[in-house]
Amino acid sequence: MSNETYTVAVVGATGAVGQQMLKTLEDKNFPVGELKLLSSSRSAGKKMTFKGQEYTLEEATPESFDGVQIALFSAGGSVSKALAPEAVRRGAIVVDNTSAYRMDPDTPLVVPEVNEEDLHNHNGIIANPNCSTIQMAVALEPIRQKYGLKKVVVSTYQAVSGAGLEAVDEMNTQSTAVLNGEEAEANLMPVSGDKKHYQIAFNAIPQIDKFQDNGYTFEEMKMINETKKILHMDELPVAATCVRLPVATGHSESVYIETETGNPDVKELQQTLSEGEGITLQDDPANQVYPMAVNSVGLPDVFVGRIRRDLDRENAYHFWVVSDNLLKGAAYNSVQIAESLIRLNLIK
Amino acid sequence: MSNETYTVAVVGATGAVGQQMLKTLEDKNFPVGELKLLSSSRSAGKKMTFKGQEYTLEEATPESFDGVQIALFSAGGSVSKALAPEAVRRGAIVVDNTSAYRMDPDTPLVVPEVNEEDLHNHNGIIANPNCSTIQMAVALEPIRQKYGLKKVVVSTYQAVSGAGLEAVDEMNTQSTAVLNGEEAEANLMPVSGDKKHYQIAFNAIPQIDKFQDNGYTFEEMKMINETKKILHMDELPVAATCVRLPVATGHSESVYIETETGNPDVKELQQTLSEGEGITLQDDPANQVYPMAVNSVGLPDVFVGRIRRDLDRENAYHFWVVSDNLLKGAAYNSVQIAESLIRLNLIK
Repeated sequence: MSNETYTVAVVGATGAVGQQMLKTLEDKNFPVGELKLLSSSRSAGKKMTFKGQEYTLEEATPESFDGVQIALFSAGGSVSKALAPEAVRRGAIVVDNTSAYRMDPDTPLVVPEVNEEDLHNHNGIIANPNCSTIQMAVALEPIRQKYGLKKVVVSTYQAVSGAGLEAVDEMNTQSTAVLNGEEAEANLMPVSGDKKHYQIAFNAIPQIDKFQDNGYTFEEMKMINETKKILHMDELPVAATCVRLPVATGHSESVYIETETGNPDVKELQQTLSEGEGITLQDDPANQVYPMAVNSVGLPDVFVGRIRRDLDRENAYHFWVVSDNLLKGAAYNSVQIAESLIRLNLIK
Repeated sequence: MSNETYTVAVVGATGAVGQQMLKTLEDKNFPVGELKLLSSSRSAGKKMTFKGQEYTLEEATPESFDGVQIALFSAGGSVSKALAPEAVRRGAIVVDNTSAYRMDPDTPLVVPEVNEEDLHNHNGIIANPNCSTIQMAVALEPIRQKYGLKKVVVSTYQAVSGAGLEAVDEMNTQSTAVLNGEEAEANLMPVSGDKKHYQIAFNAIPQIDKFQDNGYTFEEMKMINETKKILHMDELPVAATCVRLPVATGHSESVYIETETGNPDVKELQQTLSEGEGITLQDDPANQVYPMAVNSVGLPDVFVGRIRRDLDRENAYHFWVVSDNLLKGAAYNSVQIAESLIRLNLIK
């Protein structure tokens, strides 16, 4: 990487993911020249700190992107729909952390460890996949490479921060209420824009995002469709059940897979996964070593453990994948994409 | 049922399940004549109330079972190993809620909705299955009857009360600490008798019971082996990943199945399940109706919802099963077994 620096805009800087984007840019010492923190009119005027320097948030408008080279969007699908094309028109490359463009055939959907080369086909916008998709794709890729994949069934254990900081506040308030023997008031979870709201504290809610007509939620369909797109396996059978838990940060996933070939034993599969890019193996049952949500917070790794052979079917396995949904699941992956764009000389 | 009453002993009456056994005997108006509440020497002398009458706990000894007709055991495997044969020797029928006799080929393992007829083969002891097994078996049985079963993969979301009341206390204490920004002290979870202990508050722990050499936990092997035994399907491929959640009561399960035949659509499968004994269907995604742990507490039903076809494989389905782990998963099933024994004239 040269000593060049870049003009970067962060759209939605005050959100759960936006805050982690700033932190990741700082931690990775990303070559930020000028930095613009953009937000809704509601948050405009607020101040945030980056590398010890104070920045004032500006309302995001089409003109905000004049001179911006890299725009990291995480302010909701409607903001991306409205402003990402405006940013591109003004010469920026957009890394979009919403679902707005993910399934657009002209938009690459990228997990750098898996399909960095797709960045070459961009038309200004790069989509960052859904949080629960990213960590599973990172874990599946070394298996796909070595043995091929025939089927994936995942049940998720997803953290509340995936629904935003207000959702974490609601969980905490509800938790305090329940611990005091009071009623837990629900106004946001499981989906703020849906009709009914349920207690998440000390509960498990089998709904993330709204329902589609086929009985799957949008979150489940995101995992299904995005995984196929990232792995370039349109025909791969993927099934998902997505469940929200009373966990602040850190998504966990119970994954069942069938491989095409190889029938590796557990030791070989552990080896294969431990060599996978972005993966940290935590798999020593005798010493109770396995990934856990609370241990993943603040770390960029995708943690994999509990690797077992299916007891009945050949080429079939079970494992457990955990990652910080705000980092590898969102902000960290977005900044990685920006780094890849620089390395591939794709930033003008 | 005649007007006959029975001398009943409850062993482990002060525990999480023991308390629910007393409540269930009361709620179901079980024909209790004499009642003996038995415990460890530590709890002996304590007082508990049944149907408005006060009872004093006695230390459980072999002689405690003189004259007892039905003994409900829920005081840990070692107590059952030591005292269940003594109770049988004295003429009692034992319904044992520990894992001590479940896989003994001479001991029936019974979920009354599924295999009540196995009670005829008893040799004094009836085993009550593991909590997470029971609710899944109830949901699988009507499917097995109508379409046959070819494969089952389950990921569980299990409540802390399955590990006892002290575990719930630990979760609550940890939750308060975390909400106050303090360290969460862990002394019990995930397994009190194992080497390491981890925070369960705001976390998901992929370990319930100790690990076996094959990488599966005992809890997972219980679900696998007990399900085969209850359904009389020794060759059924069953796989399980068992996970502990910060939920006080109510186990949830994400179940993937492949049937032998039928390829029913969702409506037909909903109909089949809703007609299953012990099942309450809660499956209306358009109105956000699905089973949830907090709604199951105190109810004997096995709740089933989120029924979907697999999007790729024929005869393959996903659904979500929730039940109160202390009731249908333990105390309620035990009392149901006792009722079946009476109805089948198996009590001397």
